[in-house]
Amino acid sequence: MDSIHLRIPGPTPIPPRIQQAMLAPMIGHRSGEFKRLYAEVTAQLPPLFGTRQRVLVLTASGTAALEAAAVNAVAPGEEVIVVVTGAFGDRFAAICERYGLITRRLEVAWGEAADPDRLRAFLRQHPKAKAVFLTYCETSTGVLNPVAELARVVREESEALVIVDGVSAIGGAPCEMDSWGLDIVVTGSQKALMLPPGLALVAVSERAWQAIEANPAPRFYLDLLAYRKAAEEASSPYTPAVSLFFGLREALAMIEEETLDAAVARHALLRDMTRAAIKALGLPLLADDAAASPTVTAVGPFDGSVLDPEALRACLRKRHGLVLAGGQKKLKGRIFRIGHMGWCAPFDILAVIAALETGLAELGYPVALGKGVQAAQEVYVRHVSRAHHGSAV
Amino acid sequence: MDSIHLRIPGPTPIPPRIQQAMLAPMIGHRSGEFKRLYAEVTAQLPPLFGTRQRVLVLTASGTAALEAAAVNAVAPGEEVIVVVTGAFGDRFAAICERYGLITRRLEVAWGEAADPDRLRAFLRQHPKAKAVFLTYCETSTGVLNPVAELARVVREESEALVIVDGVSAIGGAPCEMDSWGLDIVVTGSQKALMLPPGLALVAVSERAWQAIEANPAPRFYLDLLAYRKAAEEASSPYTPAVSLFFGLREALAMIEEETLDAAVARHALLRDMTRAAIKALGLPLLADDAAASPTVTAVGPFDGSVLDPEALRACLRKRHGLVLAGGQKKLKGRIFRIGHMGWCAPFDILAVIAALETGLAELGYPVALGKGVQAAQEVYVRHVSRAHHGSAV
Repeated sequence: MDSIHLRIPGPTPIPPRIQQAMLAPMIGHRSGEFKRLYAEVTAQLPPLFGTRQRVLVLTASGTAALEAAAVNAVAPGEEVIVVVTGAFGDRFAAICERYGLITRRLEVAWGEAADPDRLRAFLRQHPKAKAVFLTYCETSTGVLNPVAELARVVREESEALVIVDGVSAIGGAPCEMDSWGLDIVVTGSQKALMLPPGLALVAVSERAWQAIEANPAPRFYLDLLAYRKAAEEASSPYTPAVSLFFGLREALAMIEEETLDAAVARHALLRDMTRAAIKALGLPLLADDAAASPTVTAVGPFDGSVLDPEALRACLRKRHGLVLAGGQKKLKGRIFRIGHMGWCAPFDILAVIAALETGLAELGYPVALGKGVQAAQEVYVRHVSRAHHGSAV
Repeated sequence: MDSIHLRIPGPTPIPPRIQQAMLAPMIGHRSGEFKRLYAEVTAQLPPLFGTRQRVLVLTASGTAALEAAAVNAVAPGEEVIVVVTGAFGDRFAAICERYGLITRRLEVAWGEAADPDRLRAFLRQHPKAKAVFLTYCETSTGVLNPVAELARVVREESEALVIVDGVSAIGGAPCEMDSWGLDIVVTGSQKALMLPPGLALVAVSERAWQAIEANPAPRFYLDLLAYRKAAEEASSPYTPAVSLFFGLREALAMIEEETLDAAVARHALLRDMTRAAIKALGLPLLADDAAASPTVTAVGPFDGSVLDPEALRACLRKRHGLVLAGGQKKLKGRIFRIGHMGWCAPFDILAVIAALETGLAELGYPVALGKGVQAAQEVYVRHVSRAHHGSAV
């Protein structure tokens, strides 16, 4: 049995109809067919970001989109604030440092969300900051940072651009880029968009375009001005990953059929089911309820516990083909993470929890079999019942 | 009938078994499965480049690999020579200029190959050059530059690194990176490797690694040192395009089955069939026989001719679903190009030529129907007959 159940926070499983769409015969990237594909796809992307701005598509992974935001919007020698809540905020800061930006790190304990008041004080300490870098969903901890509130504080305190890593969030968490006052939001294809890795999406505000146009710092493959210019002709400046564009069109069709609101509500439900189950099993959750991401749940830390999360992951991989993620950097070996984004339904969470319970039992961890499943079921049944009675999700 | 015959110089058609391979269920990029896939693929890549060095794989298009070569090997303020023989040499130079390299362009007439003696004189004029950038196959003109001879001249005259754009060449043209003394060679997935666009491959010599290690210029997503470090653990520093890796493994299996030598010989045969046909039809060839690429043939220029290459392309697209490429930049509207690389057999060239003849007739161009096909057939039959008699290809 080599059936695999991939429940890590990206890459995520690819729905068969997206696989099928990517099988379309190859086309030239300068052809009319590609221009139509490009135009169709890019017309449907802005609602995912909550923006009326154009969304640019780069052939690269999410890290390249983070770098694109940094090198286009800020020039070397300028000051920036990076709010670091985990491994990906840390990477954002590393990119800024590498490019000679004066980088002020606002460090937050891993597993906690950034606090708007702390950011306000930090902004007052660093009034020259040209940009503030935020991580919406910090994939390494399962924390969803309050970017709307954080962005409001930035706008109240300064003229700094608000640059947001939306990699594990867009499509799974609400995003209202324009009304929240976000200036650059980036994401990747391999998360809630249900595609293989290889495409990075970048949305840019008018304010950010002004900074980008004025920025003399060198960039070529990641030059957003080149992507904007090509986009005016429904084209990509460099050869795009054509098959992933075919897949993206199908993914956007799936999201449109479900509706974006329903997709976002589904992710919240998956989070609530997962967290209820973990609590019922008596396992620790790294993030508080108020800070919990709808796309990934970190379980742990297991410091001093008899449970070794790496042994648990190995057992689940072997017995059930269930692939969960481990911890990164300072959380390595101390937590495990359940990805519940993209092509993931309540059914999948029930199965994940049921398998998890057997793994705990096999490792000798005291577990009341079925207890986690029951808690998840109760969340689900309440949700369905509320939906039947017409309440808001 | 929407059958499409894509005969442009990239992207190229995807063989069904590669499509099938890319349908493998998604896996995590930090998993043991991906490490095995990565190790298997990267073990098979060096022979394509003729090197014993490691070949790095970036998730990006070929332009990003050109940029990676430039920003890793040379620091801003250093001097470089770029041999410009067409649109892609021009892009190589534009990248160097954007990054503040003192860029000396050796301009060659489009359609001609770079001359080693001219390069020698140019090197003597610019003795401080830290690197010389060459285009192996200049896709915009169908010229295969004599990189072995050009590299030899560089080595005789200077200590400059030899950096080669092998994007439309690797897998279709011979490449002996180590014995020719090439320092960096890059290619893309969507050419002779029969994959969709989205992966870029970079091979680096010991000499070039020394320059890269000593170069303080900032780079992050395109930092080759990060790729080398990750490669030591059979991994990629940032999320790789996993489905294209599945495809690359299958493409390499196909090349191994055919043998690389046979694949290179096939491309030469496709070139010879194409050129014999074009000559028999009385159409102009942009490149001389001695400079002709095995992967793409440029036909024209049609300046002052009754034949409009754009009208011909539109006719072939409409009647036969045959997609040929037009000219780029200063050759726009003046030539058409036939791509014959990757998943392309003699059968395909016979069909392309036969369709081309009908297009010429439909546009009222004087054409002896069947004459081009016959010339291509004769080349093919001679080749098969020689092969039967055991001669070298």
